[in-house]
Amino acid sequence: MSLPSQISFSKKRTWSHDLPISFLMQQGVENPGVLSLAAGLVDQGSLPVDSTRKALEALFADPKTGREALQYGTTAGSLALRTLLLSHLSNLEQKSADELGITVDNIIVTTGSQQFLSLAGEVLLDPGDICLVAAPTYFVFLGVLQGLGARIISVETDEFGMRMDALESTLEMLESQGELAKVKMIYLVSDYENPSGLSLSIDRRRQVVEIARKWSRMQRILILEDLAYRELCYDGPVAPSIRSFDPTGETVILTQTFSKSFSPGLRVGFGVASPEICAAIRDKKGNDDFGSTNLSQHILARVLDDKLYYEHVEQLRSVYREKRDCMLDAADACFSDIPGVHWVHPNGGLYVWMTLPESIETGFQSPLFQRAVHEDKVMYVPGELFYAFDQGISAEEQPAIQKNHMRLTFGVQNPEGIREGMKRLSNAVKSLS
Amino acid sequence: MSLPSQISFSKKRTWSHDLPISFLMQQGVENPGVLSLAAGLVDQGSLPVDSTRKALEALFADPKTGREALQYGTTAGSLALRTLLLSHLSNLEQKSADELGITVDNIIVTTGSQQFLSLAGEVLLDPGDICLVAAPTYFVFLGVLQGLGARIISVETDEFGMRMDALESTLEMLESQGELAKVKMIYLVSDYENPSGLSLSIDRRRQVVEIARKWSRMQRILILEDLAYRELCYDGPVAPSIRSFDPTGETVILTQTFSKSFSPGLRVGFGVASPEICAAIRDKKGNDDFGSTNLSQHILARVLDDKLYYEHVEQLRSVYREKRDCMLDAADACFSDIPGVHWVHPNGGLYVWMTLPESIETGFQSPLFQRAVHEDKVMYVPGELFYAFDQGISAEEQPAIQKNHMRLTFGVQNPEGIREGMKRLSNAVKSLS
Repeated sequence: MSLPSQISFSKKRTWSHDLPISFLMQQGVENPGVLSLAAGLVDQGSLPVDSTRKALEALFADPKTGREALQYGTTAGSLALRTLLLSHLSNLEQKSADELGITVDNIIVTTGSQQFLSLAGEVLLDPGDICLVAAPTYFVFLGVLQGLGARIISVETDEFGMRMDALESTLEMLESQGELAKVKMIYLVSDYENPSGLSLSIDRRRQVVEIARKWSRMQRILILEDLAYRELCYDGPVAPSIRSFDPTGETVILTQTFSKSFSPGLRVGFGVASPEICAAIRDKKGNDDFGSTNLSQHILARVLDDKLYYEHVEQLRSVYREKRDCMLDAADACFSDIPGVHWVHPNGGLYVWMTLPESIETGFQSPLFQRAVHEDKVMYVPGELFYAFDQGISAEEQPAIQKNHMRLTFGVQNPEGIREGMKRLSNAVKSLS
Repeated sequence: MSLPSQISFSKKRTWSHDLPISFLMQQGVENPGVLSLAAGLVDQGSLPVDSTRKALEALFADPKTGREALQYGTTAGSLALRTLLLSHLSNLEQKSADELGITVDNIIVTTGSQQFLSLAGEVLLDPGDICLVAAPTYFVFLGVLQGLGARIISVETDEFGMRMDALESTLEMLESQGELAKVKMIYLVSDYENPSGLSLSIDRRRQVVEIARKWSRMQRILILEDLAYRELCYDGPVAPSIRSFDPTGETVILTQTFSKSFSPGLRVGFGVASPEICAAIRDKKGNDDFGSTNLSQHILARVLDDKLYYEHVEQLRSVYREKRDCMLDAADACFSDIPGVHWVHPNGGLYVWMTLPESIETGFQSPLFQRAVHEDKVMYVPGELFYAFDQGISAEEQPAIQKNHMRLTFGVQNPEGIREGMKRLSNAVKSLS
C-alpha cells in the first residue's frame, strides 16, 4: 500500500529550497575533469597534519585528558578553550579583554562560524524582519536569511566596503516607508569579503557603529560582524574589528572561525556577544545539539596554548600570499588584453573578484558558464549568487543584480593549477568577447 | 552613551526560555559536593581512549588521510561513514539494506542525534502543529518542540511503552476537534526510554506504523523514532526498530547516535529518512553548519571498519549491566521498606524511574529536592520535567502532570557512588514519608 497523503513540510522549509551551493557541488561531481576555481575549500597541502597529530598525542598520552575530550562538553563550549580565545582576541585586537569588555561568558563555541551566524539569525530574526547586507556578500549567509524568511536589503559598496552614505540613505528610505522597526541587523564581512576580497576601511568600522546606534530608535539595530578571513592577511597586520569600536558590546556581535586559519574539518568557530544574546543563543544551541564536538575544542585549545597555532598561521600566510600573487600575475598575463575586464587585488582572504564587460553574463545558464565547464574545463562561481533578492518588494522594484562578475579562488589549486585555470578561463571569455 | 533601545528577539526566542536543563546544570555547578544521580553523562572510566587513539594514529600516520579528515566534508556527511552505517544498521536489524529500503542517500550524519531531532522538527513543524509524545518522554526533545512553537500532546504509557489504544483515542479526539490536519508527528523513544527505562513492545512497533498510516488522511503523519539507547541492551539482543516495520520508509524517520555507545565528545549521530525529508534536512543543515565535524566522522569510520567499535560496545554493556544491577540492588536495600515507592527494572539504557507516594512531590521547588541537594547531598532529575505542557489548551484542561517521580541514572557514578547516592536519597525520602 502506498500512502495517498503528502508530507506537509514546515513553511520555512519552502524558503530554503534550491540553494545554489548544492548546484555548484553537483557540477563539481558531474564534471570531474574540470579544474575548479570555484570550490571554497582551503589549501589541502598546508592542512595542519603535524600540529594536530602532536596535539592528539599529548591529549591521549594521559587517559584522563583523553577521557575529558571524549565526554560531553557544555553547550557554550570548553572553558579552557574560551579562556584561550580571550587572549587570542586580545592579541588580534591589540587590546586587553577588559578594554574589549569581554569575558569568557561572552563567548560561545560553535560548529564553524557558520553555526554562529545561523544561531544569531534564529534568535533575532522573524519572517519579514530586515537585514542590511553589502552587495555583493557571502551567499551562504544570504541562504540563512532566506531560510528565516527575512527581507534582505542590499547596500552599495565601493573599494572600501559598504558605503556609509548608502547605508544612511537606505535607513532613511526604510524610515520613510514606515519599516524602520523591522530593521534588526546589519551584516558585514569586515576583512577580505567573500566574494569581493574587499575590506571595510577603518573609518567606516567606526562609523557603522555610530550609524547603527543612531538609528536604534525603535529597537536595537545590531551589527553582525563576520571575521572568517581576518587572520588570512598577506600585506599587513590584522585589522581591528568593528567590535573594537563598540567597547560596551551592545551593538556588535562578532564571529570568527578556525576553518580558514587552521582546519575546517574540526568545525570550530566562535562568537562574541552581549550576555542577553549569548543566553538566547545558548538556549537555541541547547535544543539544537547541546554543544559542538568536544574533541575538536580540546585540539584547538592545545594548539593555541603551545603556540603551534601561531606558527601554522604564519606559514599559511606565506603559502596563500604566493598563490594570491600567482593568480594576480596570471590575470595580468591572460586577461589584461581583453577590453572591459578588471579585477580586485585582495590583501587577504581566498578570492579574486573579476568583472567582465556588461554584455557577458556569468550565471549557471549563461553561454560563458556552459562553455567554461564543458569546453574549456574550468569552473568559477557566478557573481550574481552574491547579490540578494529582496523578498519584500516586487521583481520590478529590485535593484539591478549585476550579472557580469566571477568569483575566482586561489585556495584549492596549486600555482600550476591556478595558471592553467586562468588560461582556460580567459579562452572561454575571449570566445565570447 | 548607553543605548535607549531594547534588543528585539525573534518570536521563537521567547518559546525557548528557562530550559530546565540549564537549571539542572547550574545546580551541579553551585553544589559541587553533591553526589549526582542526575547528570546524563556517560561512564567516564569506559570512554574509548585506546580505540580512539589507535584510530587517530592510523589516520595521521598517512598525511593524505590526515588531511582528508582536516578538510571540509559534505553537508550529508562522509560517504565512507555512511556506507559503514548501512552495514551497521543491517547488523542491528538483522536485515539487509535492501530489505530495509535504505541506501547511503537516505542517511545524514549530524552533531549527535540531538541535531537530527532538531533538524527534523525544523523542516516539518510550524507553530501550532501537533506532535504526539509518550508521557513521560525525553525532555530535551520537549524543549525542541516548545522552541518551534509546536503543540505537544501526551499519550499515556504502560509497561510496554506508549499505549496504542490511547494513541488511537487521542487521534479520534483531535479529529473530532477538527485538528487532525495539524498532526504531523509521533515521537517515540523505542528502547529504554529516557527517563522511564521502558521499551515499546514489538507488537506495538508494528501497530504504530499501521496507525500512523491509517490516520494519514489529510497529510502524512510521520513517526520520529529516537534510538539513542538501542545498543545499550543488557538482557538480550538489540530489538528491531519501528522503522523495520516500514520497509518503504514513507512513515518512519529513524535517528541513532554514537554518544552513548562510543563517545559523546565526538558528537556523531545520524538519521535515516525518505529522500524528500533528507533533501529538506540537508538544505537546513547546509545553512546551519554545512556539515558536522569531519575528523569525528573519520574516527568513527575507522573504529566501525576495524571492529574496535563492536568490541567496545560489548565491554560497555558489561560495565553498565553491573551498574544497573548495583542500582537496582541498592533500591531494594534502601527503598523497599518505604510504603508506596516502586521503580522500573530497565533492560538497557542508563536510567531507573522511581515513583514515590503521590503526596511526595519531587520538583525543583519541592521540600524533597531542597532537602536532597542541601542536606543529604544527592541530586536526581524531577520526573515532572518529562511531561509535556500542551500550549494549545488552557492550564485547566491540561492532563494532570505526575509530580511524584524521579529519574535516577547509573551512568556516571561508580558502584560505590551509586550505593552511597541511593542511601542518601532514601534518607531524604524517608524524612518526608
